Amino acid sequence: MSVTHEDQAAPPLVSFDTEPARYRHWRMSVDGPVATLTLDVAEDGGITGGYELKMNSYDLGVDIELHDAVQRLRFEHPEVRAVVMTSGKDRMFCAGANIRMLAQASHAWKVNFCKFTNETRSGIEDATSCSGQTYIAALNGTAAGGGYELALACDEIVLIDDGSSAVALPEVPLLGVLPGTGGLTRLVDKRGVRRDRADVFATTAEGVRGEKAVAWRLADETVKARDFADAVQRRARLAADRSARAGAGGIRLTPLRRVTEGDVTRYDHLRVEADRGAGTATIVIAGPDEPPGSLDELHAEGAAAWPLAVVRELDDAILTLRANEPALGTWLLSSEGDPAAVSEVSRFLLKNREDWLVNEIIQFWKRTVRRLDATSRSLFALIEPGSCFAGPLLEVALAADRQYMLDGVFTDADQPAPPAVIRVDEFSLGLLPTASGMTRLGVRFCGAQAELDAAAAAAGQDLDAARAAGLGLVTEAPDDLDWDDELRLAIEERASFSPDALTGMEANLRFAGPENCETKIFGRLSAWQNWIFQRPNAAGPEGALRRYGTGQRADYDRKRV
Amino acid sequence: MSVTHEDQAAPPLVSFDTEPARYRHWRMSVDGPVATLTLDVAEDGGITGGYELKMNSYDLGVDIELHDAVQRLRFEHPEVRAVVMTSGKDRMFCAGANIRMLAQASHAWKVNFCKFTNETRSGIEDATSCSGQTYIAALNGTAAGGGYELALACDEIVLIDDGSSAVALPEVPLLGVLPGTGGLTRLVDKRGVRRDRADVFATTAEGVRGEKAVAWRLADETVKARDFADAVQRRARLAADRSARAGAGGIRLTPLRRVTEGDVTRYDHLRVEADRGAGTATIVIAGPDEPPGSLDELHAEGAAAWPLAVVRELDDAILTLRANEPALGTWLLSSEGDPAAVSEVSRFLLKNREDWLVNEIIQFWKRTVRRLDATSRSLFALIEPGSCFAGPLLEVALAADRQYMLDGVFTDADQPAPPAVIRVDEFSLGLLPTASGMTRLGVRFCGAQAELDAAAAAAGQDLDAARAAGLGLVTEAPDDLDWDDELRLAIEERASFSPDALTGMEANLRFAGPENCETKIFGRLSAWQNWIFQRPNAAGPEGALRRYGTGQRADYDRKRV
Repeated sequence: MSVTHEDQAAPPLVSFDTEPARYRHWRMSVDGPVATLTLDVAEDGGITGGYELKMNSYDLGVDIELHDAVQRLRFEHPEVRAVVMTSGKDRMFCAGANIRMLAQASHAWKVNFCKFTNETRSGIEDATSCSGQTYIAALNGTAAGGGYELALACDEIVLIDDGSSAVALPEVPLLGVLPGTGGLTRLVDKRGVRRDRADVFATTAEGVRGEKAVAWRLADETVKARDFADAVQRRARLAADRSARAGAGGIRLTPLRRVTEGDVTRYDHLRVEADRGAGTATIVIAGPDEPPGSLDELHAEGAAAWPLAVVRELDDAILTLRANEPALGTWLLSSEGDPAAVSEVSRFLLKNREDWLVNEIIQFWKRTVRRLDATSRSLFALIEPGSCFAGPLLEVALAADRQYMLDGVFTDADQPAPPAVIRVDEFSLGLLPTASGMTRLGVRFCGAQAELDAAAAAAGQDLDAARAAGLGLVTEAPDDLDWDDELRLAIEERASFSPDALTGMEANLRFAGPENCETKIFGRLSAWQNWIFQRPNAAGPEGALRRYGTGQRADYDRKRV
Repeated sequence: MSVTHEDQAAPPLVSFDTEPARYRHWRMSVDGPVATLTLDVAEDGGITGGYELKMNSYDLGVDIELHDAVQRLRFEHPEVRAVVMTSGKDRMFCAGANIRMLAQASHAWKVNFCKFTNETRSGIEDATSCSGQTYIAALNGTAAGGGYELALACDEIVLIDDGSSAVALPEVPLLGVLPGTGGLTRLVDKRGVRRDRADVFATTAEGVRGEKAVAWRLADETVKARDFADAVQRRARLAADRSARAGAGGIRLTPLRRVTEGDVTRYDHLRVEADRGAGTATIVIAGPDEPPGSLDELHAEGAAAWPLAVVRELDDAILTLRANEPALGTWLLSSEGDPAAVSEVSRFLLKNREDWLVNEIIQFWKRTVRRLDATSRSLFALIEPGSCFAGPLLEVALAADRQYMLDGVFTDADQPAPPAVIRVDEFSLGLLPTASGMTRLGVRFCGAQAELDAAAAAAGQDLDAARAAGLGLVTEAPDDLDWDDELRLAIEERASFSPDALTGMEANLRFAGPENCETKIFGRLSAWQNWIFQRPNAAGPEGALRRYGTGQRADYDRKRV
């Protein structure tokens, strides 16, 4: 059980590569403007051994397929304006995260699993709000725990009225943990369920059915079996009709090319260098050669076009480092290329942002940089000669906890590159808002409107280290003499601190400003869940997660903390 | 160390009673409109044994005195419009929470300690914003960790410029925990410190001094020693001049009368009945006889006046139950009296809210009901015949996770009291906002404006169980036949759940709606800190808290979670 797993030297390596032809748990079908995602979990298809995925329960592998499907619907199916999510099983929509998997998983695995599933559910809401693809949960059976949380991430919920199918959040009464993939937050903050009813609901293992579920705002409609399919399709068509999404000719998300040799992983436009001694991963992003010549050319290039190819690679690098390299605690964010060329791409995207594909590329950048915000690693941006932190890449730097920018050149280099410059543009001024809706510059300067205005006024200019420091866009601007020592000391120092304290510190400093459903899920809800996942009442030998299904009740320490 | 403490059958009982004549760690002096609170900690005055309070470090006992002082300044000193907080030691303002105390404290003690200190610091900000008493931190020496967090809770910070005194948050680098009493949140959200500088600052054990502290917004001013006292007094006078606080003739907060016999504790207007078998504490609040005849009468009655006496008792009951009765996991909130009489008091207070004392009484209710919101116990309100949930008492019921209201009368009673009614008034419509600024009704109906409007429209009316249920003001309204069984089952069920999961669930469901500094401190920040406090990297035998001061460095598990 969990102790064993904690002690395993090497948990299974996770890959996020998949495509519909390889799905084992989901089916995707498209009928004009309406797509259907059908969950039909293969019991023997767990991503790790040791459990069966009964009753349409899921693990990380199931969710990796869902994430892939949601992404592909945005890029490969511009014609799709509504998505029905339903189940291929009888009387069971989804029983939530698999309990035996949770019981045997290490604390770190649980936390990382929850983060990824939360990001995928935020991504579903993002598809609705930013791409006009409305998700409709068609609950043709019981939706329990994470299953109902999946429904909560959809825009509308239709529940079959068959006298037995219910929606339920049984985590607290049965498992001693929270509905931690957004359930509690979305109940009260998104659906406006009255808090005392939410309390009753989240402590009632069997859940709520039929008209009561509608009266309590847990579902939007409940429909008899014979009318269920029609009612769902009617809602889907209405949602599709409301959508402003317009496009045709989806592009194919071709498999990523990624080669790992020793401690270096290379993609087409990005490489990751691990330094296990220092505990760092250096992510080097290569800039573009030139912007697409036209919109047609961008569409023709598809997944090969730099602005899409590189963000797919960055997203994959973030996910695989998070899942597979917990001991690389500091990520150094670096870039190589011509800032003017990035600016050209940036201008091209901004000019064509009404195009559906350009919009999808921009939204993908938004979600990927938000993944950085939610990553439990220390992030330092290194802005050196030869780098190209402009447009969306500047946001990568601004997502970091600190920015180091070399003032001047590396004088020892054979052919010293010219001093680094950064460029602020619309990508930092509104195109890629953080989860709270504020820009990263807004969060950075939340105490100083004048400094925010000054940074905005410098948009479009080449800002060298002195100006960038003067504008407060970088943390430190050492020169060639000090660069190596200062960085080395900062990295060594970071590696000497408690990883947990750093995670907690960063999760608090990165989210200044207002909060909303998304930030509350990653802050308030996830932090409480992480705490509970550490408590003996959940994860100990007599805890509820370990005792579940054994016939023995959990033996709780009754003291409230 | 902590393992031993965790295992102790009975941690020390905590009392919150004190008064200036008994202070061992603080001195309070008043000079016209300016009061001074001087921290001068008695090293041998720890509330529990086992550590010395060196370098003006604090424990719960020190903070109980601070809380008492802040309260008394509001009630006993209407003439005070600015408060200077400074140190009686040389070159050390305050070194923060005592590390040896933290190292030996149980997890529950640490969490409860942090909650109380956070509430006291929120109370300091509340004194500034709602009572016109501006707090000025006069840092005549180094303010480190919780010492600097105390300064952050003040409205202005003046730091002595003596070449050595610094402000610092050394928790992450030295202790492997967070600055958890608001530090991280107030840095970026209150003072607008740039997040990358906040990162540098919170990882620099020695802190920041002089002009750099001002440039980074960590302090408002830095002043040489010879001018320090004058600069502080100048700021205090300016703040006092700006204040609209006007009053004279403070009232004395006389000692609470409280007698415990067996499992029952009686105050003048309130009693607490513990049922250890069921794991419940029943808090019975007695209503008033009649409202004060006049403002003069209210002032003459002072601390004996019902609206003040009863909220002081409720506050004390909350604090002592929290600290001393962790196994009483469900609180049953009850009342006895005439709802019309409570409404009379309510109207009296509303009519006279411009009076300084009335304002203080209302603000005290606000803070006390917020303590309920932040209490890690399940709260059920029991609204029975003979109860008086009107005015501020209705807010006590609305702070509960559920409201049970008897429909009809107890037919078996010898002289059945008439059916219960509740009354909504201005106390629920704006006078007692939750920490986020929303009313409790606004949070309750955050998904349903029409329901909020309907509840507001019913203000002033006697609402019986049927109407209260129809308006969504109560969760369940069983009749006499079902009441006992339904309550018993609900209480038994609650006692069967994981206390940790309940704490996490309630902390998420109670705070729908927007967030701000205060809610983020009790949500995001505290939850992360609780998580860290459970992690071996902090609390384990090789963790930083336990190793601190031993000469051995902490031995961290380097994996990031």
